[in-house]
Amino acid sequence: MKNIDSWISISENSDFSIHNIPFGIFSTKNDAPRAGVAIGDQILDLDAAAELGVFNSLDFNPHVFKRETLNDFIALGKEITSAVRVLIQQELTNPDSTLKTNSNVFISQVEAQMHLPVFVGDYTDFYSSIEHATNVGTMFRDPNNALLPNWRHIPVGYHGRASSIIVSGVNVHRPMGQTIAPDAKAPKYGPSKRVDFELEMAYIIGKKTNLGNTVKVENAEEYIFGKVLFNDWSARDIQKWEYVPLGPFLAKNFASSISPWIVTMEALEPFKVAGPEQKPKVLPYLEYTGERNYDIGLEVAIQPENGEETIVSTSNFKYMYWNMAQQLAHHTMNGCNINVGDMMGSGTISGKSKDSYGSMLELSWAGKNPVKLGDGSERKFIEDNDMVIMRGFCESDEIRVGFGEVRTKLLPVK
Amino acid sequence: MKNIDSWISISENSDFSIHNIPFGIFSTKNDAPRAGVAIGDQILDLDAAAELGVFNSLDFNPHVFKRETLNDFIALGKEITSAVRVLIQQELTNPDSTLKTNSNVFISQVEAQMHLPVFVGDYTDFYSSIEHATNVGTMFRDPNNALLPNWRHIPVGYHGRASSIIVSGVNVHRPMGQTIAPDAKAPKYGPSKRVDFELEMAYIIGKKTNLGNTVKVENAEEYIFGKVLFNDWSARDIQKWEYVPLGPFLAKNFASSISPWIVTMEALEPFKVAGPEQKPKVLPYLEYTGERNYDIGLEVAIQPENGEETIVSTSNFKYMYWNMAQQLAHHTMNGCNINVGDMMGSGTISGKSKDSYGSMLELSWAGKNPVKLGDGSERKFIEDNDMVIMRGFCESDEIRVGFGEVRTKLLPVK
Repeated sequence: MKNIDSWISISENSDFSIHNIPFGIFSTKNDAPRAGVAIGDQILDLDAAAELGVFNSLDFNPHVFKRETLNDFIALGKEITSAVRVLIQQELTNPDSTLKTNSNVFISQVEAQMHLPVFVGDYTDFYSSIEHATNVGTMFRDPNNALLPNWRHIPVGYHGRASSIIVSGVNVHRPMGQTIAPDAKAPKYGPSKRVDFELEMAYIIGKKTNLGNTVKVENAEEYIFGKVLFNDWSARDIQKWEYVPLGPFLAKNFASSISPWIVTMEALEPFKVAGPEQKPKVLPYLEYTGERNYDIGLEVAIQPENGEETIVSTSNFKYMYWNMAQQLAHHTMNGCNINVGDMMGSGTISGKSKDSYGSMLELSWAGKNPVKLGDGSERKFIEDNDMVIMRGFCESDEIRVGFGEVRTKLLPVK
Repeated sequence: MKNIDSWISISENSDFSIHNIPFGIFSTKNDAPRAGVAIGDQILDLDAAAELGVFNSLDFNPHVFKRETLNDFIALGKEITSAVRVLIQQELTNPDSTLKTNSNVFISQVEAQMHLPVFVGDYTDFYSSIEHATNVGTMFRDPNNALLPNWRHIPVGYHGRASSIIVSGVNVHRPMGQTIAPDAKAPKYGPSKRVDFELEMAYIIGKKTNLGNTVKVENAEEYIFGKVLFNDWSARDIQKWEYVPLGPFLAKNFASSISPWIVTMEALEPFKVAGPEQKPKVLPYLEYTGERNYDIGLEVAIQPENGEETIVSTSNFKYMYWNMAQQLAHHTMNGCNINVGDMMGSGTISGKSKDSYGSMLELSWAGKNPVKLGDGSERKFIEDNDMVIMRGFCESDEIRVGFGEVRTKLLPVK
């Protein structure tokens, strides 16, 4: 039986088990945003817990829990943040915990509003799923040479827009943009007709570097605080016209949605698995040892307005060709500096089978094979008022550690 | 005679005339970073001036001058920031000003250390010089179709790295990276052999928008606080190998240097000029009226270690095909939000003549025609310990308004 050992009631299939303890920022009607931990269907108010003296045995100033983002907490370093997590686990399993008799430290998740957990200074998006890159290359370039020559040598990535990162629950408007019809001579201005999700995960940087310094593959995990689900909204028709030669821009920067709870690397540790074989051999600065991928089940659902949701993709983070340690070593090998709160996206996570593709572009094969929803309707891309829901979780016989959801509705053009 | 009307001594060829009044952040040996204004070879300490009551007639809290960045000052809005600038001009020309008898409010520029003037949340780089885009397209693609099909329709741009923006005076190390030799089958890891400058200017956002909102061309100037010189360091060999399909990444994010003084749009107003004709006609959301370009003379010098500097490029900001208002309207037309302190680069500013090209890539035509320096040495790209200096200024018979310098030494690999 899972979750048997906490005195707090946690359902067996909860993402937020005693083994998880993810951190986020929440607010309630009368109180300002502050730090919390998700446990079952509750939030443990860390500021309130600190006022009870729960963290007195640890050497840090719990004022960090009063902030509107987790950056200052995360910047304390893993020695402290890990100890906080372990102490919370102990308190929630200790029948004599002060928390048990102070029910005001718990808030029902349905009564709280979640906020962006961190201030993101810089956001980078990688392109690290070989299945995704192959699918896109097959559709848009040459099926026989789907992967570009650099792909197996470089964890290809690019900079994204940090200002338009939003948290689950914030809706997005269909973007306007320039697009060009296949045989047209000139572009047109109008609403994107190919709004798409991208099923991704992102990691949050937990330790800064100074300009000129590097992070080695073997030390990369020191610099990663935790992970979130990430829907990298994309306008395929805008992207197609604008992206040469400097990469995607307005096709991506109208919104990027993340789940509100950061699941720590400590919580994900039991779910490490081997990654795919990398051929040809990578350059020495990208070589790694041990298991660096993570078995995280992922799913995407589309829910039309007033309708039921249909799961349109079932994927897994373990498919990633390039792992996070390699991405970070590559990102910093030229001395590029990173800051606490920076976000690094995985790129769309597609598996080998057609039902594991991580975007409508791939699932509908650029619109050629519309995806059927449970209500009988079809989707080539996302339609106005569709809710897109992504979920992710790790599960063994003994443990479940999940991410909750990132849920975003696509509203009509504003 | 220029600058005749101030009681402070300002040389006739100073960039920092009474007509300029640019804002920056400086520190002195014993005092923390704070806001100042450059005037002649002095800095007016705005915090010290505020303590004398100089700004008492204006409705704002002068504590903004105590901050380590100008973001909070700029966020007050142009009504305030313009009034502050005008008031400083009045004080510096009023022979009875309190400032005149309080010499402690002035610090010699040589005794001060300059800092990044703003915290940059997001940095975008455009690619708006038609001469530069044509040169690059001619070298790397097809001389007969040098411009890509989207170039005359879209102010092409992409997101850059905000964390590695540095101020003039901070040195840069030659970056390591992956590159591939012309006929090689596999890439190598090593120091970049083609480190280059890019002569650019950047503008600083002065007013935020919310996600989903747009900025129209006709209102764009409301959102622009001022401009700086910008050296967008580039590693051409890394760029060539990594940039498909998502754009430049490590080739750019090892450092981006800016000049320390933000010259306001008010100071640049007298130097507005017409831009080049845009053919074909742009889409309506990019149409503009009036003069939207600026006549800003630009130059780049290379100074070898222990040597004299040689001017290698003389360009002008007026050459830009796409103006700042168009860039900003395009950037936000999909609802992408902007924040105070965001930085928008112009892209390399090349003119028509060979001595006006804004990068070594163009000046040496990818290394084929090395550039001669005054000491008899030659440069295809930038060598270790070379200092790259960029300057910019506007000048009429009556007025000189300049940017000072952005000066960065390229150090060997760290």
